[in-house]
Amino acid sequence: MEPMKTPIAMDRTFDALYGLEILEYGEERVVARVAVRDEIKQPMGLVHGGVYASIAEATTSMATASAVYADGKAAMGLSNNTSFLRPVTSGEYVHATATRRHKGRTTWVWDVDITDDEGRLCATTRMTIAVRDLPQS
Amino acid sequence: MEPMKTPIAMDRTFDALYGLEILEYGEERVVARVAVRDEIKQPMGLVHGGVYASIAEATTSMATASAVYADGKAAMGLSNNTSFLRPVTSGEYVHATATRRHKGRTTWVWDVDITDDEGRLCATTRMTIAVRDLPQS
Amino acid sequence: MEPMKTPIAMDRTFDALYGLEILEYGEERVVARVAVRDEIKQPMGLVHGGVYASIAEATTSMATASAVYADGKAAMGLSNNTSFLRPVTSGEYVHATATRRHKGRTTWVWDVDITDDEGRLCATTRMTIAVRDLPQS
Amino acid sequence: MEPMKTPIAMDRTFDALYGLEILEYGEERVVARVAVRDEIKQPMGLVHGGVYASIAEATTSMATASAVYADGKAAMGLSNNTSFLRPVTSGEYVHATATRRHKGRTTWVWDVDITDDEGRLCATTRMTIAVRDLPQS
Repeated sequence: MEPMKTPIAMDRTFDALYGLEILEYGEERVVARVAVRDEIKQPMGLVHGGVYASIAEATTSMATASAVYADGKAAMGLSNNTSFLRPVTSGEYVHATATRRHKGRTTWVWDVDITDDEGRLCATTRMTIAVRDLPQS
Repeated sequence: MEPMKTPIAMDRTFDALYGLEILEYGEERVVARVAVRDEIKQPMGLVHGGVYASIAEATTSMATASAVYADGKAAMGLSNNTSFLRPVTSGEYVHATATRRHKGRTTWVWDVDITDDEGRLCATTRMTIAVRDLPQS
Repeated sequence: MEPMKTPIAMDRTFDALYGLEILEYGEERVVARVAVRDEIKQPMGLVHGGVYASIAEATTSMATASAVYADGKAAMGLSNNTSFLRPVTSGEYVHATATRRHKGRTTWVWDVDITDDEGRLCATTRMTIAVRDLPQS
Repeated sequence: MEPMKTPIAMDRTFDALYGLEILEYGEERVVARVAVRDEIKQPMGLVHGGVYASIAEATTSMATASAVYADGKAAMGLSNNTSFLRPVTSGEYVHATATRRHKGRTTWVWDVDITDDEGRLCATTRMTIAVRDLPQS
């Protein structure tokens, strides 16, 4: 089987723009991080809530897509529910751990926890990913 | 009263990074857009779900913060629930309209609809914003 | 085509237990209500949040199921995101209006607003319903 | 301090109506169950999604309320996000375990997992509970 090719080079995507680094990658668990700097913050100096949502979206949809590709399936985010628990204003990285909670035939569900450098829980996302047949080419 | 100052210059924030343009701004309604280009997409060529979540987060938290600032209050995102309905792969802009649904003493709730150039609904976000006393300085 | 039969008589279901009354029924809009009384409240005297979630679940999944049944499809709730805006402690009814926001091939999305007798918004639900092939018999 | 009194007797509430049984109760973890029978099902014979949402709502808001009462605070559900993973049609009980994820000054966040008699995950809820000052009497 052909390896999965992506229409957009990885270093030109949105994930490259905000600086997503994948540290561990698998179909049940993904670990990633993003360096804290002004350009991932909102005007008041807090890491932007959209960054947490983006990390959750990226890690879980890529991991699901990779896993189901061999079965001729595609994966796409269906919903992203992110709760903000504690603001991050400084530190070196925001850290993300995505854990799969459910592997269904048509949907996968993941929890993604975002922590700061001290390991405190700062945001948490429930991601639902749709698994569908790949369009026949 | 002093105008609200932001610790980070607006052109150095995350919203500047992905290219948020505010077209209309008020405490009940915000209209914004983002130009479609590779760097807001995920590897498969779709606009990244995190971009929709970011637009919703930015428009509603800024509008709430501006409105409650005169009362000595701050605003901060509490939860961002984004549903993805139709992928955007091309076109000039993704368009966002944020509409306030609830103005409570401690929380505001907004709906944000994301449409494509043809006006089709592509994503929709329910944002809950916490309103809290500003830290005394 | 055979009309849809339900394995459980409507007057023995959970919706009958808490007293769901359907006032208007269609594939784009459903209007319903539930009489306010102690047995739909939580111990502090507020209408129980689970009642709002139940009304949203019932109205939207039944309306979707009826609409897709003719195409040999079944409908099932995928997620129910309910926000609580204003407690209801008295009054005659809680009133619900479900409005379809998205009709996709595999998912429908509805918004359900719950109001009190004065028309004030008390809760709002985003329901995502999965549409799947009926099991072949 | 006076023990917390409830305006409605526990055996006349909604939780009594659908049959909530609390098995373990604490400020970080609550275990509960509900007996499976027709009157907690929807017409197609599945346990009603509103029942899962109700269990999550009840366990977490009661546990939060009990814990913050000594500090002169009240607790109230802010949002209930329930995902449905696997239908329950038979068995003796649906089982719920609520686990606290975040204890903030103004919000607590809980995860509630619903399993069947075989321990399979059937639904999962993220509950956000607001903690507020009790009205002065």
